Amino acid sequence: MHMIRVTVWNEYIHEREDPEVARIYPKGIHEAIAEYLRGMENLEVSVATLEEPEHGLTEDRLRSTDVLVWWGHRAHEKVADEVVDRVYRRVVSEGMGLIVLHSAHLSKIFRRLMGTSCRLKWREAGERERVWVVAPWHPIADGLGEYFEVEHSEMYGEPFDIPPPDQLVFISWFKGGEVFRSGCCFYRGMGRIFYFSPGHETYPIYYDPNVRRVIYNAILWAKPVRRGPPVFGRVDPLEKL
Amino acid sequence: MHMIRVTVWNEYIHEREDPEVARIYPKGIHEAIAEYLRGMENLEVSVATLEEPEHGLTEDRLRSTDVLVWWGHRAHEKVADEVVDRVYRRVVSEGMGLIVLHSAHLSKIFRRLMGTSCRLKWREAGERERVWVVAPWHPIADGLGEYFEVEHSEMYGEPFDIPPPDQLVFISWFKGGEVFRSGCCFYRGMGRIFYFSPGHETYPIYYDPNVRRVIYNAILWAKPVRRGPPVFGRVDPLEKL
Amino acid sequence: MHMIRVTVWNEYIHEREDPEVARIYPKGIHEAIAEYLRGMENLEVSVATLEEPEHGLTEDRLRSTDVLVWWGHRAHEKVADEVVDRVYRRVVSEGMGLIVLHSAHLSKIFRRLMGTSCRLKWREAGERERVWVVAPWHPIADGLGEYFEVEHSEMYGEPFDIPPPDQLVFISWFKGGEVFRSGCCFYRGMGRIFYFSPGHETYPIYYDPNVRRVIYNAILWAKPVRRGPPVFGRVDPLEKL
Amino acid sequence: MHMIRVTVWNEYIHEREDPEVARIYPKGIHEAIAEYLRGMENLEVSVATLEEPEHGLTEDRLRSTDVLVWWGHRAHEKVADEVVDRVYRRVVSEGMGLIVLHSAHLSKIFRRLMGTSCRLKWREAGERERVWVVAPWHPIADGLGEYFEVEHSEMYGEPFDIPPPDQLVFISWFKGGEVFRSGCCFYRGMGRIFYFSPGHETYPIYYDPNVRRVIYNAILWAKPVRRGPPVFGRVDPLEKL
Repeated sequence: MHMIRVTVWNEYIHEREDPEVARIYPKGIHEAIAEYLRGMENLEVSVATLEEPEHGLTEDRLRSTDVLVWWGHRAHEKVADEVVDRVYRRVVSEGMGLIVLHSAHLSKIFRRLMGTSCRLKWREAGERERVWVVAPWHPIADGLGEYFEVEHSEMYGEPFDIPPPDQLVFISWFKGGEVFRSGCCFYRGMGRIFYFSPGHETYPIYYDPNVRRVIYNAILWAKPVRRGPPVFGRVDPLEKL
Repeated sequence: MHMIRVTVWNEYIHEREDPEVARIYPKGIHEAIAEYLRGMENLEVSVATLEEPEHGLTEDRLRSTDVLVWWGHRAHEKVADEVVDRVYRRVVSEGMGLIVLHSAHLSKIFRRLMGTSCRLKWREAGERERVWVVAPWHPIADGLGEYFEVEHSEMYGEPFDIPPPDQLVFISWFKGGEVFRSGCCFYRGMGRIFYFSPGHETYPIYYDPNVRRVIYNAILWAKPVRRGPPVFGRVDPLEKL
Repeated sequence: MHMIRVTVWNEYIHEREDPEVARIYPKGIHEAIAEYLRGMENLEVSVATLEEPEHGLTEDRLRSTDVLVWWGHRAHEKVADEVVDRVYRRVVSEGMGLIVLHSAHLSKIFRRLMGTSCRLKWREAGERERVWVVAPWHPIADGLGEYFEVEHSEMYGEPFDIPPPDQLVFISWFKGGEVFRSGCCFYRGMGRIFYFSPGHETYPIYYDPNVRRVIYNAILWAKPVRRGPPVFGRVDPLEKL
Repeated sequence: MHMIRVTVWNEYIHEREDPEVARIYPKGIHEAIAEYLRGMENLEVSVATLEEPEHGLTEDRLRSTDVLVWWGHRAHEKVADEVVDRVYRRVVSEGMGLIVLHSAHLSKIFRRLMGTSCRLKWREAGERERVWVVAPWHPIADGLGEYFEVEHSEMYGEPFDIPPPDQLVFISWFKGGEVFRSGCCFYRGMGRIFYFSPGHETYPIYYDPNVRRVIYNAILWAKPVRRGPPVFGRVDPLEKL
């Protein structure tokens, strides 16, 4: 079996500073996600966090990562530009998959890949979210019903300043009157990127079976193709064909 | 000024048979739409209905129509295949624009252009609909706010069995928990097609300034390009270039 | 290992009537493709042809097909509408993958799914075709270089009257001055469709390792998701959420 | 008549330093383009160049520009980041159109909006280019035939490291065996962007009637919609709807 090597990255700040968050995610959001993924026989899972040297994302680590899962919120600006460059190159030039979760819509790496501000509307009222599948054929929807619900969620709403997604998989409904493109695929260079919005730190969303399934499906979908790097630049004199 | 010739087509049955609908649209839905469009200095507006000979859509009429607006509900199957063929050719081979309203999602012409069943979920509860703009750059959103509301609307909800829209302009929120891709652009052959869902016959939706603005914007967007018809088939022996 | 059940369908007329074609494909194009696919450990491969009862595409056969590969040229109109309906439903309502090869661009099933005429330009001059990858991240390009060449090919050229592809994987260059969108993905209902143009009956193209690799990759890509059929129609009275 | 205010920007270096270029474009590429556009009754045209203060792109100038046309090649890095920020905001937050020509694929503003490297293959052999229309319905193709030719062109070829275009209008064929997505539309925030590749400084391409027509069409297509800026951030407490 071809194993997919996954690294789950988390800034890991809320969980250490806020008792309410610590209660929900005692080992951190990364471990809540990783513990589920470790149960999958086709994945090799490791974790990395902001305060490790080079944020745990050394050249070696990235080279042995097929798909990187990214959660950040409070410390986007603390992520070193050099590490962002490294992740960026690994996605665009070498095809590493990238799964961007929730508040990481404002992470440096996501904004750079999108070329837009990635801003949105939000409200923290613990309201009900319904996540509708609008791409019924999509592998990221594998095993899901026509929608699933998150009982208490942070609202993320339109306008969401992203390029038109290359594939739109989910649209969320919120009790307060908003909608949101909550599952979006993008292709950039050799790499595939999936943004998935459900997942606030004060709700136990990463234990939800549907949310977990989406993350797993997205990892399978985002794994790199096996092709050489693209060749750019000047080419030989005009051949006669 | 270059005038755009618009024909508003309506099956015109509900309004003659149902007193409640007749009260709202005494001259028919087509006239409610046409009366607004006649106020636009760059449009030449006419109407046509099912019970006219050839449903009012003769070769001549279609040849002098740049954009066709289509409303139907109860009598989709009564539209003659020959007329559907004619409209189809005029869209695909000659670039006539087509604006498909509300329950016309099940019209023969729309289903044929889409290649899918075009079915959806629905509920008639007069509930609130919020139509969010998700393509802020789109000419069909010109002059609109970030959303507009229809106070009493028929719910149309996902799944909506259409191909992925070539451009997704609006997503609707419904009080009952549904979302809907309510403004969708498609390109087929030389023609542009816009599907717009708000608009039930028992609600005065076609008097709503936002709904009317959307229809007007869509007409401007869908007007034909000026190009010869595409040339298919066998081409000359291999030239030396 | 999860096996993917593939059926390769061929009208199988040229090979029996034209000695030149018979020399290249003595057992038929379907067998040339199937023999390669049978070497893949994750595929279960069978074949079917036009002159079998129900063209070999009974309800049972289709129900046990995950991905259908389709080659046709001379006999599109001989394919029974009832069988086309069956294939159509299996794709749109149940997610069977469909790989449409070369001259099958004019098959009933492809035209119905597209909603357009699917016509194109063509020239039979055995000229050189270069198939460029323009979606470097795409699983259908897995294992390919930046382009591959088909030394002697039938030219298929633009305009190609299809809806804008949901993903464009390949663009072909032809010596005679034409280009062609030669690898196109479409999503329709629950199903995924891939159109791939290289492959004339008088050239040994289906023995080409790159062409074969593309067909194999497309099968993996098009396999059905595991989800229940979509539910359309009237929904319960407005719930309080 | 609603006038569209156009600014044509050029780095204007080759034309002053290289006699061969000066012979073709004695007043600069910007003036060759502007002279044509000034003949259009619905455009108000001005020009700006790199060596003017703030590169001629002051806040005032940009505020009174509806569509900006950009040509650059040798001096991309000399464009001040502050000016790039300003152009960027005007496109993404306020909807100014942007037409990016030829070697400006490597301009700071284009790369920032795309989020990718925007690299490509190239060859300077004065070879023949055929620009095929693949979006026959597109307003940027208005008035064009099925293709047009540029007799002597610099080759730009795939792979072209851009996100999948939101609309692909042109594909170019080159004598030497390459293809290129030569006319690409992108939506970013409130703004529309068109990249168009024909146009080297040593060929008189900007006098070509087809090339000029494309630029004019693109300006009409890219003009801003009239809508307020998007509102992001925290929204009011959960309303009861």
